[in-house]
Amino acid sequence: MGKIEAQNIDLESFKHSSVYKLDDQYWFQEKSDSFAGQAFGLEVKEILYHVNSEYQDILVFKSATFGNVLALNGIIQCTERDEFAYQEMITNLPIMSHKSPKKVLVIGGGDCGVVRELIKHLDDGVESITMVEIDDMVIQLSAKFLPNMAKFRDHPNVKIVIDDGFKFLKELENQNEKYDVIITDSSDPDGPAEEFFQVTYFKLLANALNDRGIVIMQSSENIWLNIDYLKDLLSKGKQVFSNVRYAQCYMPSYTSGQLGFIMATNDFSNPLYFAARSFSPEKEAELFKYYTKEVHKSSFILPAWADRTLNGN
Amino acid sequence: MGKIEAQNIDLESFKHSSVYKLDDQYWFQEKSDSFAGQAFGLEVKEILYHVNSEYQDILVFKSATFGNVLALNGIIQCTERDEFAYQEMITNLPIMSHKSPKKVLVIGGGDCGVVRELIKHLDDGVESITMVEIDDMVIQLSAKFLPNMAKFRDHPNVKIVIDDGFKFLKELENQNEKYDVIITDSSDPDGPAEEFFQVTYFKLLANALNDRGIVIMQSSENIWLNIDYLKDLLSKGKQVFSNVRYAQCYMPSYTSGQLGFIMATNDFSNPLYFAARSFSPEKEAELFKYYTKEVHKSSFILPAWADRTLNGN
Repeated sequence: MGKIEAQNIDLESFKHSSVYKLDDQYWFQEKSDSFAGQAFGLEVKEILYHVNSEYQDILVFKSATFGNVLALNGIIQCTERDEFAYQEMITNLPIMSHKSPKKVLVIGGGDCGVVRELIKHLDDGVESITMVEIDDMVIQLSAKFLPNMAKFRDHPNVKIVIDDGFKFLKELENQNEKYDVIITDSSDPDGPAEEFFQVTYFKLLANALNDRGIVIMQSSENIWLNIDYLKDLLSKGKQVFSNVRYAQCYMPSYTSGQLGFIMATNDFSNPLYFAARSFSPEKEAELFKYYTKEVHKSSFILPAWADRTLNGN
Repeated sequence: MGKIEAQNIDLESFKHSSVYKLDDQYWFQEKSDSFAGQAFGLEVKEILYHVNSEYQDILVFKSATFGNVLALNGIIQCTERDEFAYQEMITNLPIMSHKSPKKVLVIGGGDCGVVRELIKHLDDGVESITMVEIDDMVIQLSAKFLPNMAKFRDHPNVKIVIDDGFKFLKELENQNEKYDVIITDSSDPDGPAEEFFQVTYFKLLANALNDRGIVIMQSSENIWLNIDYLKDLLSKGKQVFSNVRYAQCYMPSYTSGQLGFIMATNDFSNPLYFAARSFSPEKEAELFKYYTKEVHKSSFILPAWADRTLNGN
């Protein structure tokens, strides 16, 4: 794919189902049937890029107060202002609860934010990072418009494969390639990521893991929107993994202001909900803006009703 | 004040700066200079009541998916769907970290949700509840449209005073009336609540407390929006109280999906960040939908950058 060229889109004549004009301001409004009746809005200053790629509708815009924003099929994937929360948590929850994470696989993650977080762990054990993203356009657009997220995409320890993550894992069934941590950083199940939320996928993940390996995925729905869906997703995971847990973090630009993760392992000795390793407070402060070992533990503490429903407490 | 009469407002001809029509749907959009560039939206099914009271613009509407909603000056105060999170946390954080909370004062709290939560503690020590709300209209509208929140407003252990909370506390300077817990459940500082976010107010609170007394207030801004404001608010509190802490909880219908609290005491022996008393798990499950003693502790665990800024860690 060639270099991304600026599109110079005129906001006034730009037509998109998620962008509207109100009182002389332009707003991006995030709407979906999976969170009917509520919509998070961001004021749009400039449309940076819009394309219907082979896989999805991709919109990149400059917001008034959240920096540049990437939306896939009308759903916010990241904003420059708060992306660190999601990227640090989906990366460090598994990496820090693993005693010796050397080989890491990222499924999805086209904005390369997870890769950036993984690069921070080259000094404490991570050796190779493989990222499998289906849509090269997302990587190219992130490189241009989210440079702080995508800055390590060409790092020598990083291998990027443009392929369907499900197919990639399926092919691993016939190979002896195993990973210590697999991070599924996908979009929601409405688009190309639908196959990532099924038992078959959990089985492919388990097959691709070393002993003591850990997987994590964003959970799509959250405890406020559809706790029954989450309960079901956890029980799918439990058909394959001996320990499956739900964690959450604050994320202002995501639905309901939060994001949930499903984390799983077949290592009986690993509770997942605390860090197996730690940095000095100084090192921790140097590396992370959101994650701490205390934040790790507290992300598994759920409000009473959610704890009862998901953990049976 | 008389009984609230239905207004039968026609949504199509209703004019309000926070309500607009888009693609044949009506939406409430929450906008403010204190969170410029972002706006949470709720689909509106019916305008239940609108009035400019002596103090503020009050809008009550039926939303598509969050139940009935109360907005003051265009800012969401509560929705039937998620109000329990805020009400349980602002009430139980101080009540459960106090060893023997008998007399409780609520400043604001016109929807009577905090009163409902306090009534749950009559069996474990709370004896008298005084609520001082400036705007009787908020109480009356909550009684009609948020009946589950306002159901204990006429309870024999509850005394409701229609008055300015600041003035009420000022008058206590010349009396010997003291409280164990004071909960300031106000709107944001833009409206009549402006005086609740000043050193003078912290002094009035301290004066009205018994030894070992605890105060809590909603913090208005959150860590993502304006952490410098919070740091300043904490330092105002520290001019008056020996221990001042910031806690937060998830709250989908509030800005950034969360709410912060400032909690303070002059009891050196009370760290505030854990419960001083506890219920059996069964009793806890019977009483609360959000709060647990684990949630209590974790609400004080802040993301790394916020912890460094607010707690100096």
